[in-house]
Amino acid sequence: MKKIEAIIKPFKLDDVKEALHELGLQGITVLEAKGFGRQKGHTELYRGAEYVVDFLPKVKIELVVEDNLVERAVEAIQQAARTGRIGDGKIFISTIEDAIRVRTGERGVEAI
Amino acid sequence: MKKIEAIIKPFKLDDVKEALHELGLQGITVLEAKGFGRQKGHTELYRGAEYVVDFLPKVKIELVVEDNLVERAVEAIQQAARTGRIGDGKIFISTIEDAIRVRTGERGVEAI
Amino acid sequence: MKKIEAIIKPFKLDDVKEALHELGLQGITVLEAKGFGRQKGHTELYRGAEYVVDFLPKVKIELVVEDNLVERAVEAIQQAARTGRIGDGKIFISTIEDAIRVRTGERGVEAI
Ligand SMILES: Nc1ncnc2c1ncn2[C@@H]1O[C@H](COP(=O)(O)OP(=O)(O)OP(=O)(O)O)[C@@H](O)[C@H]1O
Ligand SMILES: Nc1ncnc2c1ncn2[C@@H]1O[C@H](COP(=O)(O)OP(=O)(O)OP(=O)(O)O)[C@@H](O)[C@H]1O
Ligand SMILES: Nc1ncnc2c1ncn2[C@@H]1O[C@H](COP(=O)(O)OP(=O)(O)OP(=O)(O)O)[C@@H](O)[C@H]1O
Ligand SMILES: [Mg+2]
Ligand SMILES: [Mg+2]
Ligand SMILES: [Mg+2]
Repeated sequence: MKKIEAIIKPFKLDDVKEALHELGLQGITVLEAKGFGRQKGHTELYRGAEYVVDFLPKVKIELVVEDNLVERAVEAIQQAARTGRIGDGKIFISTIEDAIRVRTGERGVEAI
Repeated sequence: MKKIEAIIKPFKLDDVKEALHELGLQGITVLEAKGFGRQKGHTELYRGAEYVVDFLPKVKIELVVEDNLVERAVEAIQQAARTGRIGDGKIFISTIEDAIRVRTGERGVEAI
Repeated sequence: MKKIEAIIKPFKLDDVKEALHELGLQGITVLEAKGFGRQKGHTELYRGAEYVVDFLPKVKIELVVEDNLVERAVEAIQQAARTGRIGDGKIFISTIEDAIRVRTGERGVEAI
């Protein structure tokens, strides 16, 4: 199992969620975050206004998926989150060793 | 060292915290999250009302523990977080390679 | 690539950010968190008042860096976050297997 963490623009959350649903991926955790990237000193558009970027509101999505779904999930997130402008976000992939579904006690891939 | 991440129902946080304390686990980080699971379209109870589940408020707990405490911690979380209804949550386990305690500079297992 | 997660005192965020910038590390994600550590029952200073510590406001910083920058980043965070009093925080290190820059599609170390 892999964990996919994606830091994206908040207004892209619905599109990303839809794109993941279309792959059958429904278990997702979303956290509010503040981020800054490499564009320090540059400006970024947020709600129609330009900001000299220090911290900007971002949304962090976390989802744990089977190994063989990682590439499709990453592609879906990238396509849905992309605007072509700076600040579109980052995706990070790491290994999850075990998962437990609290209600049923299932473990491993069955649990995600 | 392992990181245990648990996404649970917010009203279960105190019970989970107590259960972990009883194991001597006091270092815990808690984040507010929004989540959705496999019950898309189903309903889930939140503060006495039924919701057609899209995003629901969840709490994310993170704790780093020694390898030999993982199973006991997972069991404690699962038992304390479980209501038997959908949406009870997920637990994920991954590897942490090093830890640093900022005040003392200790590293590794001593630091957690 | 490694992920560095640091849970620090909120008022130390600017210092930590500056210390990381001086190393050329600009990509950082920040999350609000509540934390408790080993000082259960002890008191901790927050905004000039003493609290019997249950949960305290903390800030969680996440940054993904090349392997050869980890030690310098950890040292920078530790020095900037340290006050010498309890509750100064923790730093955790783990492996990231891949990274994607959403705007450009770059992957791996190029993407971070
Ligand atoms: N190395 C990193 N570690 C952790 N979080 C990061 C890292 N790089 C970026 N982020 C997070 O992702 C958000 C979006 O990054 P961003 O898309 O601006 O990356 P970038 O490399 O500057 O690309 P671009 O040139 O397209 O802006 C940042 O605001 C930050 O929250
Ligand atoms: N694969 C996953 N990756 C990341 N987060 C997940 C995943 N699955 C679930 N979650 C998070 O855990 C929360 C609780 O999940 P939930 O307990 O509803 O899982 P479930 O598989 O639908 O089980 P149940 O049938 O008992 O509802 C979700 O709201 C979401 O935040
Ligand atoms: N093992 C752990 N797993 C996850 N988070 C932790 C862990 N230990 C501490 N934390 C987080 O780090 C924050 C700061 O921890 P803290 O600095 O109080 O650690 P400590 O071991 O009690 O050291 P000190 O004696 O200096 O207070 C906690 O409030 C919690 O959010
Ligand atoms: Mg940027
Ligand atoms: Mg569910
Ligand atoms: Mg402490």
